[in-house]
Amino acid sequence: MSKTQIPYKIYLSENEIPRQWYNLNAAMPVKHDPFLNPATLKPCTADDLRPVFCDECIEQELNYTDLYIDIPEEIRDFYKMYRPSPLVRAYCLEKALGTPAKIYYKFEGNNTSGSHKLNSAVAQAYYAKKQGLKSITTETGAGQWGTALSMAASYFGLDLTVYMVKVSSEQKPHRREVMRTYGAKVVPSPSDTTEAGRKILKEFPGTGGSLGCAISEAVEKAVTSDSCRYVLGSVLDHVVLHQSIIGQESKAAMEKYGIQPDMIIGCCGGGSNFGGLIAPFMGDKIAGKNNIEFIGVEPASCPSLTRGKYAYDFCDSAKITPLARMYTLGCGFMPAPNHAGGLRYHGMSPIVSALYHQGYMRAVTVEQTKVFEAAETFARIEGILPAPESSHAIRVAIDEALRCKETGEEKTILFGLTGTGYFDMSAYKQYNDRTMTDYIPTDADLQRGFDSLPDIPQNK
Amino acid sequence: MSKTQIPYKIYLSENEIPRQWYNLNAAMPVKHDPFLNPATLKPCTADDLRPVFCDECIEQELNYTDLYIDIPEEIRDFYKMYRPSPLVRAYCLEKALGTPAKIYYKFEGNNTSGSHKLNSAVAQAYYAKKQGLKSITTETGAGQWGTALSMAASYFGLDLTVYMVKVSSEQKPHRREVMRTYGAKVVPSPSDTTEAGRKILKEFPGTGGSLGCAISEAVEKAVTSDSCRYVLGSVLDHVVLHQSIIGQESKAAMEKYGIQPDMIIGCCGGGSNFGGLIAPFMGDKIAGKNNIEFIGVEPASCPSLTRGKYAYDFCDSAKITPLARMYTLGCGFMPAPNHAGGLRYHGMSPIVSALYHQGYMRAVTVEQTKVFEAAETFARIEGILPAPESSHAIRVAIDEALRCKETGEEKTILFGLTGTGYFDMSAYKQYNDRTMTDYIPTDADLQRGFDSLPDIPQNK
Repeated sequence: MSKTQIPYKIYLSENEIPRQWYNLNAAMPVKHDPFLNPATLKPCTADDLRPVFCDECIEQELNYTDLYIDIPEEIRDFYKMYRPSPLVRAYCLEKALGTPAKIYYKFEGNNTSGSHKLNSAVAQAYYAKKQGLKSITTETGAGQWGTALSMAASYFGLDLTVYMVKVSSEQKPHRREVMRTYGAKVVPSPSDTTEAGRKILKEFPGTGGSLGCAISEAVEKAVTSDSCRYVLGSVLDHVVLHQSIIGQESKAAMEKYGIQPDMIIGCCGGGSNFGGLIAPFMGDKIAGKNNIEFIGVEPASCPSLTRGKYAYDFCDSAKITPLARMYTLGCGFMPAPNHAGGLRYHGMSPIVSALYHQGYMRAVTVEQTKVFEAAETFARIEGILPAPESSHAIRVAIDEALRCKETGEEKTILFGLTGTGYFDMSAYKQYNDRTMTDYIPTDADLQRGFDSLPDIPQNK
Repeated sequence: MSKTQIPYKIYLSENEIPRQWYNLNAAMPVKHDPFLNPATLKPCTADDLRPVFCDECIEQELNYTDLYIDIPEEIRDFYKMYRPSPLVRAYCLEKALGTPAKIYYKFEGNNTSGSHKLNSAVAQAYYAKKQGLKSITTETGAGQWGTALSMAASYFGLDLTVYMVKVSSEQKPHRREVMRTYGAKVVPSPSDTTEAGRKILKEFPGTGGSLGCAISEAVEKAVTSDSCRYVLGSVLDHVVLHQSIIGQESKAAMEKYGIQPDMIIGCCGGGSNFGGLIAPFMGDKIAGKNNIEFIGVEPASCPSLTRGKYAYDFCDSAKITPLARMYTLGCGFMPAPNHAGGLRYHGMSPIVSALYHQGYMRAVTVEQTKVFEAAETFARIEGILPAPESSHAIRVAIDEALRCKETGEEKTILFGLTGTGYFDMSAYKQYNDRTMTDYIPTDADLQRGFDSLPDIPQNK
């Protein structure tokens, strides 16, 4: 075991929790293309978004100028209950791999939601409360986001209705129970509580639901009430902004110990975790202050960055959201039942998409069985049972560390460990039983997804 | 939100992790009565115990003289992966209750085993490895102990066989999967892999098993191999010793900020968490250096301290272990299906029993629905979903804080938050559905348990 001065876990003090989020939009000389109103195909205005989202989130969404945005004291107080999160030096993993690389990971799983999702949930719930709203709605699939928002809504005294994809709510009754414990109303979707739900139930009786349908129900509930808004857990710019607390803390902790990363690795689903982790480091790279290599990792089964198109697309499969220019497999793409539910998304954050398009980062895909192999290794050596999503980053971090072993390079690698896998044990069981399989979509599979892209002039 | 100098979470630095365990046995002027060999009714010698337990653990078990015992560097290295655990100031809970009391909790749930069990698991696995053993065995019911030991065995490269009560392994397949992920062999008990298991299967085909039976199988596997030993997760003195890391850290953290607790509260099952939490504080009390009030909390359904007898009894229901003098409901007592599996034990650590018998602490019982009410309150206010076991301590901490509100006393309360409740959501579901009931054994129920006490001269 190494006896260097750098501890196993670097904890900032509570006073060192960053006081500002880092706004990547302001750091980018070439901004990403604006969201479009699907009816007019004109850039979305704040007024377009107001019936759906909280005012303050809309302001942040459209803020392309302020590099730093103050974190309200009330949000920092909540952050103090579970942050700063530890920046861990993976001494044991380095030793087990026999690599000269120095591996660090920022661990976001030490809170009851089990993931980084809480960072934005608390911000969005706070802004809803501040605006005088009484309730918020959202959808959830695997349930991490729903859990995080339940915790935040409970803290601020907001009513929360979570539309949970019916098949998920049946497969993950424990997730549903956590949300109920936090006082959330969990409605299996499709439900008979909304027009959208009733329509789908009539058309497809007995359907297990879909994320697209759950979004439709949640948005409908929000727009049909003055005192209610809809809240989203990824993709959008203001969510990436809130998640920049991860990168801000990582940077502060590394600077405190004079550590300069050569490489930053994160898993990419909707992109908010990855965007948040890299934010201040990427800003510095854009400004020519570092030459860090940024790697986004996606599942081979849902490869939006690596095999998708850079095009305008709906953010949801029900085609009710604004259009975003992003790397996408098409909102009609049906991802295989890959276990990393949080990465099973057809598109990618417009910010991350633009950074990729502009050449500031690279992206790689990994296959599921290799991901679980890395997860098992990591669990046994570092003691933390990682979420399947997070394990995509672990896989690539291990591969890069092994590459360093070959070349002798002493690279400093930072990766994001976004969450824990306690609610993913049926996936682990498949891996343990050796019944897990990989799935890579064929070009024909992808073409079916691309066929669902909106047929608009901007996509010609 | 209070702006006092004391942070929400006090983290010691890694250098401040205590280098020694605190041996309560050495602090007690009147020692607890010795374990007896059930065959001879004479005090157990090291040789009696050697076929079952590791040599070093036996030495610790019988050490009544050294107040401090060094923690080997290898164990401290493992501790550094998940310790120091935070000492949390429950500012939000204090505010919500409107109490002048100052509430602190030591949170042991931020590791993959989800509880304090890892503190002793790593020590026992290390000593087994050091002794040159190849494998260890244990039993598990709810699965927290089995998970912790799986992690420790995997880290030290030991083979581990966990006999898991069959009905638990069926009810908690996810727990089983976590253990498998860490490389443990999980055998539903009774099994056909041991004499004891085959006998029970023949007598009771289709039985769901019991902890007593699982212990018998695990011990049989250990004693029939030279390179294998049995490992226990609670009750015994060396387990309490290892758990004293909780109290040692709590004391160091409190002293660093000049905090003096007036009251320390912990849940009591086998007693190792409670004994560990109070250890150095109790030692000081015995030495006349403080006047802290110590409160052990047990479920009304399994009240060994408050309604049990102080007598010699077997530690297991299969009557194969040495006899311990302790507060016990009788090894034949059948506890009701209370959800706090970790507190469903007929006896109590001999050390904790002696402290109670000698008047150094008091004990209270709480009912299950009141415990879950406190758990829900705590989860919503402090953001952590507590284990049902831990919530027994939360219940009493809240009650004491509310008493302070009435009297105006500004007491400083410390309680042990031993773990998280992710794997207890079916119990939470019963609470959420309002179908949970309480159970208090009648005097006749207790008498049936007492009838199972060994009929030996020492119990007359």
